Amino acid sequence: MQLGIVGLGRMGGNIARRLTKAGHACVVWDRNEGAVNELASEGNTGASDLAGLVKALDAPRVVWVMLPSGAPTEATISELGTLLSAGDIIIDGGNSFYKDDIRRAASLKEKGISYIDVGTSGGVWGLERGYCMMIGGDKAAVDHVDPILATLAPGLGDIPRTPGRDGRDPRVEQGYMHCGPAGSGHFVKMVHNGVEYGLMQAYAEGFDILKHKDSTELPENERFSLDMADIAEVWRRGSVVSSWLLDLSAIALAQNETLSNFSGEVADSGEGRWTVMAAVEEAVSAEVLSAALYSRFRSRQDHTFGEKLLSAMRFQFGGHVEKKSGS
Amino acid sequence: MQLGIVGLGRMGGNIARRLTKAGHACVVWDRNEGAVNELASEGNTGASDLAGLVKALDAPRVVWVMLPSGAPTEATISELGTLLSAGDIIIDGGNSFYKDDIRRAASLKEKGISYIDVGTSGGVWGLERGYCMMIGGDKAAVDHVDPILATLAPGLGDIPRTPGRDGRDPRVEQGYMHCGPAGSGHFVKMVHNGVEYGLMQAYAEGFDILKHKDSTELPENERFSLDMADIAEVWRRGSVVSSWLLDLSAIALAQNETLSNFSGEVADSGEGRWTVMAAVEEAVSAEVLSAALYSRFRSRQDHTFGEKLLSAMRFQFGGHVEKKSGS
Amino acid sequence: MQLGIVGLGRMGGNIARRLTKAGHACVVWDRNEGAVNELASEGNTGASDLAGLVKALDAPRVVWVMLPSGAPTEATISELGTLLSAGDIIIDGGNSFYKDDIRRAASLKEKGISYIDVGTSGGVWGLERGYCMMIGGDKAAVDHVDPILATLAPGLGDIPRTPGRDGRDPRVEQGYMHCGPAGSGHFVKMVHNGVEYGLMQAYAEGFDILKHKDSTELPENERFSLDMADIAEVWRRGSVVSSWLLDLSAIALAQNETLSNFSGEVADSGEGRWTVMAAVEEAVSAEVLSAALYSRFRSRQDHTFGEKLLSAMRFQFGGHVEKKSGS
Amino acid sequence: MQLGIVGLGRMGGNIARRLTKAGHACVVWDRNEGAVNELASEGNTGASDLAGLVKALDAPRVVWVMLPSGAPTEATISELGTLLSAGDIIIDGGNSFYKDDIRRAASLKEKGISYIDVGTSGGVWGLERGYCMMIGGDKAAVDHVDPILATLAPGLGDIPRTPGRDGRDPRVEQGYMHCGPAGSGHFVKMVHNGVEYGLMQAYAEGFDILKHKDSTELPENERFSLDMADIAEVWRRGSVVSSWLLDLSAIALAQNETLSNFSGEVADSGEGRWTVMAAVEEAVSAEVLSAALYSRFRSRQDHTFGEKLLSAMRFQFGGHVEKKSGS
Repeated sequence: MQLGIVGLGRMGGNIARRLTKAGHACVVWDRNEGAVNELASEGNTGASDLAGLVKALDAPRVVWVMLPSGAPTEATISELGTLLSAGDIIIDGGNSFYKDDIRRAASLKEKGISYIDVGTSGGVWGLERGYCMMIGGDKAAVDHVDPILATLAPGLGDIPRTPGRDGRDPRVEQGYMHCGPAGSGHFVKMVHNGVEYGLMQAYAEGFDILKHKDSTELPENERFSLDMADIAEVWRRGSVVSSWLLDLSAIALAQNETLSNFSGEVADSGEGRWTVMAAVEEAVSAEVLSAALYSRFRSRQDHTFGEKLLSAMRFQFGGHVEKKSGS
Repeated sequence: MQLGIVGLGRMGGNIARRLTKAGHACVVWDRNEGAVNELASEGNTGASDLAGLVKALDAPRVVWVMLPSGAPTEATISELGTLLSAGDIIIDGGNSFYKDDIRRAASLKEKGISYIDVGTSGGVWGLERGYCMMIGGDKAAVDHVDPILATLAPGLGDIPRTPGRDGRDPRVEQGYMHCGPAGSGHFVKMVHNGVEYGLMQAYAEGFDILKHKDSTELPENERFSLDMADIAEVWRRGSVVSSWLLDLSAIALAQNETLSNFSGEVADSGEGRWTVMAAVEEAVSAEVLSAALYSRFRSRQDHTFGEKLLSAMRFQFGGHVEKKSGS
Repeated sequence: MQLGIVGLGRMGGNIARRLTKAGHACVVWDRNEGAVNELASEGNTGASDLAGLVKALDAPRVVWVMLPSGAPTEATISELGTLLSAGDIIIDGGNSFYKDDIRRAASLKEKGISYIDVGTSGGVWGLERGYCMMIGGDKAAVDHVDPILATLAPGLGDIPRTPGRDGRDPRVEQGYMHCGPAGSGHFVKMVHNGVEYGLMQAYAEGFDILKHKDSTELPENERFSLDMADIAEVWRRGSVVSSWLLDLSAIALAQNETLSNFSGEVADSGEGRWTVMAAVEEAVSAEVLSAALYSRFRSRQDHTFGEKLLSAMRFQFGGHVEKKSGS
Repeated sequence: MQLGIVGLGRMGGNIARRLTKAGHACVVWDRNEGAVNELASEGNTGASDLAGLVKALDAPRVVWVMLPSGAPTEATISELGTLLSAGDIIIDGGNSFYKDDIRRAASLKEKGISYIDVGTSGGVWGLERGYCMMIGGDKAAVDHVDPILATLAPGLGDIPRTPGRDGRDPRVEQGYMHCGPAGSGHFVKMVHNGVEYGLMQAYAEGFDILKHKDSTELPENERFSLDMADIAEVWRRGSVVSSWLLDLSAIALAQNETLSNFSGEVADSGEGRWTVMAAVEEAVSAEVLSAALYSRFRSRQDHTFGEKLLSAMRFQFGGHVEKKSGS
């Protein structure tokens, strides 16, 4: 089927490629003309602006917005709201905050425009592996764009099937799920990322404990010098902790066992933060997901004011003189 | 090759079966005579006591102890120390604390007996999938028992190979690893279990947040009623959080989406606790692994004394009257 | 000076009493007529509605709103915005979210009305001890109401003076502080409550560890049966952990050492949650304040869905059968 | 009464001074001859070695050991065990691990020597304020040394008495407590320090959140530039979070509001670690006390291996290139 795509970065461009390859017709636009030309040379129709993209589509139009969350996505969807007509569909495939989805869907509904939010996982591997998609929106709209979703999804592949799923929605096994009304797709994707932080931190702490087993603070006969790359590899093979993140860790450690090519300053994105806030709003205890987020915050600090206050208190009550700043 | 096996529970019995099937000769003993007879009927040689098992083996003897950690393992290894001779090998395949391994290995070394500790992951799936093994001990002894380890290991299977491992120990890709001296095998397995706790808790918290998204405490237009079984399934397919533990979660949720067949009182075993203690000894921050352990502790409590103290303080400073006990 | 007070609950009523006693003239109103009459009988002027309260005040009018945060406060301040005139001052003494203060102050400023937010700590002890106040708003307005703030504050009392404060704002030593623009008072009070949660949880965990030192899971010669009330008392006297919260704990434990009169279900209010959210917004690691909040969430749950998922995974990979629901 | 004191560092020396001032007779020894001479010049009897100290005492002898925990304390108590006789008493006033106390007490009991462990809080302020003491040992021995304990304790002072303590052990209000058998004194002191870590971290996080409220990552109208020294001061006055640690924070912040004289690398001692291990042994959830300890561990690291692993995973799945090491 026909689809407009706005935003031709790594994700948007690869989505266009995966769709075109499967016979769908993509009309593409990006503020970066070079990206448009590149995709046009690969069999897509390039547009020169957003209005042009809308014009090039047949009604009911479907436009997939694949832009950085926040202002860029907001502005584009707002403008699309004025360019599109009743019956058309906007898909936000980025990483929007789900409350923004709820607000946008309600506002667009007044004009008869449907809004679908698609949380997409798979990263740079998606072009090849397919994208795991969590989708929110009205049933009719989601059903209408099913051919696109089915193409983007990874499909059954060689992943073993879960027993006991007979009678359940078959799309889920293909790697895409209609989660509920607008916002629910990005909500499920948000929690997915929160879980991702937790899983990553669990491995990080485990390898830290393994790595420091050669610490000279330990009794000499209790020290081991362990091979990080081999441990990651052996855990991939029959152990309880095998996972895709462990596969990736094994690749990285095989390349450079000390990981000396990384600084250890770890970025975080909105989803990890929003997951903690969602837990707080729901009064759900989320120790691990919060600790994983905080660990990233701390990784980007030198020494915190709080830590200096600890030293200051220790000096006050015990006369403990700790390492001085700059000394 | 020939192997003595002491302890024919689920793990020990399946290890004997997997070995016998591959042509190894097992002499087996267990204090439960029925278990011995069952294994004997499957082609193994049954012994009537530990001394008998030792006598039935050719020197250099190799005895695999597969008993509950703590007293049962300690007593058996101690007795084997008196029954075996210089050149023989004891393998502890259970879940011993690695400091016990270090002590035992030093003590047995004085008699010329080698001690190997094997941390084994794979649970009830091991008979079929093979066991992921983390091994500590002297090189000569570990090399001597390689035929047994190679048989028990899962092998390459259809798990994709990690690029960049050329020139590295090929056993690791087969699913078993010689980690270092005695104790290092159980140490790596211990941290493996600590990581396992962290991974499990990350999923648990994520699904808790998803589940409570229908809470009546939330604004009505921000509530979603989400399908737990489908979310677990869709995340298995192309997402960043796919793992074997997620596969198992998907199976459990497909069987019973509310998990009403579980009480939520979660047991913990030594390894999770020892991992936290190891982190403390090494001065490594292990927020997530600790939080995962504490969450299990808390799951087995009704209300803690600490929580009552919180209520008591709130009453004292604010006159807050909280739900009374028994009311 | 003259002050209007809206909301005559425990806090509002006591504020009126403390002010009247010091010679200030309070005009009071509450939707509960009985509360108005009671305060009127104690020397305050009662009003029959909000408009009447405003009419009874001389310009520039000052109205202290002391209502539950959220809808009641919002509605009253909104109505006051229509009843008051340029030059008048609204004080929100409740527990509003500081972002609401920022919004309200900006909106009222267009009408020339000043808005002051006062975060108040001291609980039921405030009438006697005075109230610790954290204040946000324009300097001119805060200075104008200084006589009221000075009366409500605890004053120097017999708390030792901190050395090195010469030349600093003397109001702070009296127990009230102009923190910055509108919202900053409630922000500082919010973090105060976040810290309060953390302090309380630190004591709670410590006493839990002391209490469980008689656990039969411990080796018999390592068990102690400790006296909780005496420990709280002795720590009050010369130890590093002495505090007002410990004083209150000692009172509660002296009354009932097992705290059997408390259920252990601990409520939380907005400030603890907002503090965690503020930390996340600022990318500040707040492990302890979050853990303290989560502990309260968990205290109000029976068994969580997440915990059941842990049990379900353990059953799947290890065949571990844990206590069944309802059994 | 007469007392031998071994170890004349800051704590031991001040204890001798406080006792001598009150009329007790101290025989003192330290491997540092200068410290012995200094105390001798202040009215104590100096000994030239441990044997000399023992000889200078009348039976039943009482020896207070005030040395660094671990090897120095262990060696001295071991030697005292050979120098003293049945009926004599050894007091360990240092920071020994309580399981060492249990072991030592049992061993000395065979010789008829009593062992008392005294956990002491109060730091450098103890000479003036008195020492809060938590005491383990047999009743008879503890009663025998009561005159010394009573002198070292702070006494009632001007700390308000807790209502409802009639009929309870009056020593507790004087600031010293007989907690139970040998080891229990150091156990209670150990948990005291664990709580201390938690309290300190709660303040540290709170002030970190306050400090970062001027972050340029926040919307401009939501930023506040707050005065740390004034906030610490105002919280001392009538608020719920007032405490001695807050008093000390206020002093430190009044001296240097940015705490630029501290590096933020925070040491930890055995008690904080042992408290976490005790919680794990008892299966008590201790999130806050653990997080406080881990925060200190992390404060002394540059970037952890675990954090580099997080970056490595992010690069693998998302192509995220984070700040490179050394760049």
